[in-house]
Amino acid sequence: MTAPGPLLQPPLTEETMKLNALAPSERALVPFVSVDNMMRLAHQVGIERMLSELADYIEADFRRWELFDKTPRIASHSVEGVIELMPTSDGEVYGFKYVNGHPKNTKNGLQTVTAFGLLADVATGYPVLLSEMTLLTALRTASTSAMVAKYLAPAGSDTMAMIGNGAQSEFQSLAMRAVCGINTVRLYDIDPRATEKVLRNLRPMGLNVVPCNSAEESMEGAQIITTCTADKQYATILTDNMVGAGVHINAIGGDCPGKTELAPAILHRSDIFVEYPEQTRIEGEIQQLAPDHPVTELWRVINGTAEGRRNQSQITLFDSVGFAIEDFSALRYVRDRIGGTSLYVDLDFLADPDDPRDLFGMLQRSKGREAKARSVQ
Amino acid sequence: MTAPGPLLQPPLTEETMKLNALAPSERALVPFVSVDNMMRLAHQVGIERMLSELADYIEADFRRWELFDKTPRIASHSVEGVIELMPTSDGEVYGFKYVNGHPKNTKNGLQTVTAFGLLADVATGYPVLLSEMTLLTALRTASTSAMVAKYLAPAGSDTMAMIGNGAQSEFQSLAMRAVCGINTVRLYDIDPRATEKVLRNLRPMGLNVVPCNSAEESMEGAQIITTCTADKQYATILTDNMVGAGVHINAIGGDCPGKTELAPAILHRSDIFVEYPEQTRIEGEIQQLAPDHPVTELWRVINGTAEGRRNQSQITLFDSVGFAIEDFSALRYVRDRIGGTSLYVDLDFLADPDDPRDLFGMLQRSKGREAKARSVQ
Repeated sequence: MTAPGPLLQPPLTEETMKLNALAPSERALVPFVSVDNMMRLAHQVGIERMLSELADYIEADFRRWELFDKTPRIASHSVEGVIELMPTSDGEVYGFKYVNGHPKNTKNGLQTVTAFGLLADVATGYPVLLSEMTLLTALRTASTSAMVAKYLAPAGSDTMAMIGNGAQSEFQSLAMRAVCGINTVRLYDIDPRATEKVLRNLRPMGLNVVPCNSAEESMEGAQIITTCTADKQYATILTDNMVGAGVHINAIGGDCPGKTELAPAILHRSDIFVEYPEQTRIEGEIQQLAPDHPVTELWRVINGTAEGRRNQSQITLFDSVGFAIEDFSALRYVRDRIGGTSLYVDLDFLADPDDPRDLFGMLQRSKGREAKARSVQ
Repeated sequence: MTAPGPLLQPPLTEETMKLNALAPSERALVPFVSVDNMMRLAHQVGIERMLSELADYIEADFRRWELFDKTPRIASHSVEGVIELMPTSDGEVYGFKYVNGHPKNTKNGLQTVTAFGLLADVATGYPVLLSEMTLLTALRTASTSAMVAKYLAPAGSDTMAMIGNGAQSEFQSLAMRAVCGINTVRLYDIDPRATEKVLRNLRPMGLNVVPCNSAEESMEGAQIITTCTADKQYATILTDNMVGAGVHINAIGGDCPGKTELAPAILHRSDIFVEYPEQTRIEGEIQQLAPDHPVTELWRVINGTAEGRRNQSQITLFDSVGFAIEDFSALRYVRDRIGGTSLYVDLDFLADPDDPRDLFGMLQRSKGREAKARSVQ
């Protein structure tokens, strides 16, 4: 497969021209960003800068929230887990993410969540980007949390409690530093090896990381409390007496029916902010509350039509479940970022005969021809 | 990008071993079938044999119809067209197709319909196949028509009228020969250049192809009548007086709200067979009829619980709109067929750290490493 970027141009022989006539047109090629190239993108941009730039893209799309086609995700459930398609569109660009959730995968050394995504041109229906999203989802989730905390956390927040030290915790910590300026993360997990892993990963990055022996201890002096635990049925990670006034709770882990992290009493003391109420009432912490319990949509805070934090003693709660528009923003960012780089390869994705009615002729003319004649296999 | 099949095994140096430790695991790689490789598959198998084998796979899945998760497609409409996701699952394998429909695309030299599809393992949620489906959809549509005609067309059918000579017509003709044994195709299109194209493509294949000056003329002596015209609002390709007794109508073109080909009177004289009534009543010819007009589900004919053709004078009508299970069957066929061949490439599609909780560590360890160290970019 040829790398993108400037191509070597051999002199055009008659044979080359004949082969070029069979090569797919540019519209038939779709840029693909592999896991490896997503990691290269993160290193070239810098992880914290990328988290910060992603937060900007997500914020921009929250600001024009009303433009988007919004549908709850389309889920296919099985005994072992769920496979979901999350589509959205801003009228010019269409995007969707494929994502699975299989909590028992880790037992077999597999990821609980894998994902990929696609952008397409609404005017033609032609795909314009295919990208891995396992890593990108981890980045966008952290960027969304940090962007929201920028609006809701108490002014001058410098310390975050990070409860649950799994795959998301390093990204959360770095995004909160990049976007909100925190400098200290207090870590707690029921499994000390998970905390060890985060210490090992984050110490070299100049963040003040403090291992703690309990959730209570991790919350000492923290203005932001992030909960991100996994695979618990109606767990209570935070009880009412643990949470004082004047904090922002960033609740990541409660994200599907039957999976919550916070005691209901905390929810009743908090002002609750959500992405898309229709989805959060099914999947978020607020599934524990009455279906008409008041919540504020974040996009209204961001475009100035609803109030965010009103005072320093209020408890704000971001009941995060993840929404299709955040994935759309992340894919939009990747698309903008990879232009002119070698961070993608072109896939021969779309059949594109010269005469659109002559698909069969295209097939017949390809017979016997060497595959290498096409610029990309 | 390495081709699949037996890999060259260089001696393992210490450096190689270190790099291998960073290479994605096998589960992280997803086989991708490009347009070029789909064409090579068709030529290696033989187009008619492939159409026939696809018909067998589709028939097998119609026979176990009740097993499948069935949802109407999820559509995102715009002024210019529609983008749809078509998911289904048999409980072990999940599949979906992305497909667009943009009638005005041909004006700009683009395809009206492009498509790709994916299969995933239900037990883990991990994708196992990514494939082009623009070409594959053309093949599966023809194979479905032929498989259905095998059950419904009059015994001894040898002649088909092919009304509408666009991209689908050659595939329809060859599938009907391969599966039902027809030897003559009588062609009509309002645009004589379209008919010329089909003559040019099919004459070398030993099929008796007859250009006709009208739809009526094309139907002389035909036991199977295939209508496949495009881009007409409530057109009437067939009027009542044109259709005699003892034929099978294979109606492909009426496949979305507002797009039909047959006069309602024909529908009232026919026994109507459909894929999935919930979808066909919205998209098919029967959108012209009362919502409770009796139709027979094809899977019942195939598994023997409903009657197909009862006598030689009956008019049978397949009101074809295309359903997710046919795409699933086609992807299943491709997956079975490409094993052990060089007709795919492995994409580095899924982030797969050794420790599932240590996604960040995987990202950090990749820093500075050359992309070429991974087996696939």
